[in-house]
Amino acid sequence: MFSNSRSYEIEWGDCDPAGIVFYPRYFAIFDASTALLLEKALQMKKAEWIKAFGIAGIPMVDTGANFRRPCSFGDVVTIRSEISEIGRTSFGVRHTLDNKGETAVEAHEKRVWTGREASGALRAMPLPDAVLARLKGG
Amino acid sequence: MFSNSRSYEIEWGDCDPAGIVFYPRYFAIFDASTALLLEKALQMKKAEWIKAFGIAGIPMVDTGANFRRPCSFGDVVTIRSEISEIGRTSFGVRHTLDNKGETAVEAHEKRVWTGREASGALRAMPLPDAVLARLKGG
Amino acid sequence: MFSNSRSYEIEWGDCDPAGIVFYPRYFAIFDASTALLLEKALQMKKAEWIKAFGIAGIPMVDTGANFRRPCSFGDVVTIRSEISEIGRTSFGVRHTLDNKGETAVEAHEKRVWTGREASGALRAMPLPDAVLARLKGG
Amino acid sequence: MFSNSRSYEIEWGDCDPAGIVFYPRYFAIFDASTALLLEKALQMKKAEWIKAFGIAGIPMVDTGANFRRPCSFGDVVTIRSEISEIGRTSFGVRHTLDNKGETAVEAHEKRVWTGREASGALRAMPLPDAVLARLKGG
Repeated sequence: MFSNSRSYEIEWGDCDPAGIVFYPRYFAIFDASTALLLEKALQMKKAEWIKAFGIAGIPMVDTGANFRRPCSFGDVVTIRSEISEIGRTSFGVRHTLDNKGETAVEAHEKRVWTGREASGALRAMPLPDAVLARLKGG
Repeated sequence: MFSNSRSYEIEWGDCDPAGIVFYPRYFAIFDASTALLLEKALQMKKAEWIKAFGIAGIPMVDTGANFRRPCSFGDVVTIRSEISEIGRTSFGVRHTLDNKGETAVEAHEKRVWTGREASGALRAMPLPDAVLARLKGG
Repeated sequence: MFSNSRSYEIEWGDCDPAGIVFYPRYFAIFDASTALLLEKALQMKKAEWIKAFGIAGIPMVDTGANFRRPCSFGDVVTIRSEISEIGRTSFGVRHTLDNKGETAVEAHEKRVWTGREASGALRAMPLPDAVLARLKGG
Repeated sequence: MFSNSRSYEIEWGDCDPAGIVFYPRYFAIFDASTALLLEKALQMKKAEWIKAFGIAGIPMVDTGANFRRPCSFGDVVTIRSEISEIGRTSFGVRHTLDNKGETAVEAHEKRVWTGREASGALRAMPLPDAVLARLKGG
């Protein structure tokens, strides 16, 4: 399945009074990681593939994370993101965040390929073949 | 001019490793304070007056804040928000955030009443008379 | 087990370009909900029980959420938080977020009662009896 | 005076339901820009110079921003940050954020070099000579 790695430097504003990453920030980091994963897979920026495929976005339906070691500000971490499963209207992603040579956070997510009905309501849509091929490939 | 006061309890996630509010969070707190100010003035929630007046929002064009004393998590602060000026397509708001009997933060902002052209582009629009009257009143 | 309910109004700044809550924000909302749950259980604010028990915080070790229905800005949601399990140095919390009479988000979390060693390193510590009794009670 | 430029790609989570950057996010972007500016000036990461100089941080005492043009998600912007003034215990920074060849946001900030008294209270401290020289240089 398609995968991508990127690095990220933990910012002061990511951290809480205990001096470690405020965990909701990890989910924002993973959200950007998934956007980048699809950008690499589809060879278009998220802003572009959202337009190109006429969708509203890829809302999260289920996510979870396991925090093994704290990260502190200034840490330069690596996030490896990989497509973990592909359904008809949804797909899964697995993120592994490493810090100083050890896995600090593992996360999984399930997202839905989502368009809008004429009424404006959000609705799950089948993953286009072109997207399927790219998410599997690589 | 119209004004409103509300209280807010500083959250763990608002604070940084120095144990004090990460200042961008104050702007999010003030943004919600302005939404509440207009909710009180227009007697509709922001989601409703955006629909009722057919606008895209009230984007910020200029804001600033003076941080006199740090606030820490658990502090219950009071935010007084007041319309400070009214233009043709814009209005100003002044926020005063008090903590433990002293002013901790003062902020000012200028916002534009913003609709969309047929093309989808954002465009400043004249403040409706009904809105003008309410922002002045009270 | 001890539980608490609170209401929360979805803010403009909680929402993304699709007009729905940016999901990392739910985790920040749940983090504050857990702080409030313990505040009610221990009858002290988080800032106070952190000091009273001499700990650094209650970092998250595992969390997950299931997003059933989107919430939009202006929605007033109810979050019910309940202690779901109690270990020697950790405890679980289950959050149920209802919107317009239906469950929109379900989340679970596991947190560790965490102090500091003389070296400053974070370390899991046994839940004090006084805390145990309160988390079970109610 | 010392200056630095960096690029930043606007993320989905930076944007609001109007599809443009939620302005408090700009301040978080500028905060990281200032951290990077000092990292370049002092040739140490923020985590390191905070330790090296024995300070608690560089809290903001005054900041403001002028938003000339909206930025949307996917935009790759350039932020130029420059030391604008140097006092005994404080310094100023000016940020200019360009998008598509035009200035979208201008911001200024004043920060205080802040240590802790024995009691733990935060206190302004004179900028060390080594820091002064670096902030002026370049």
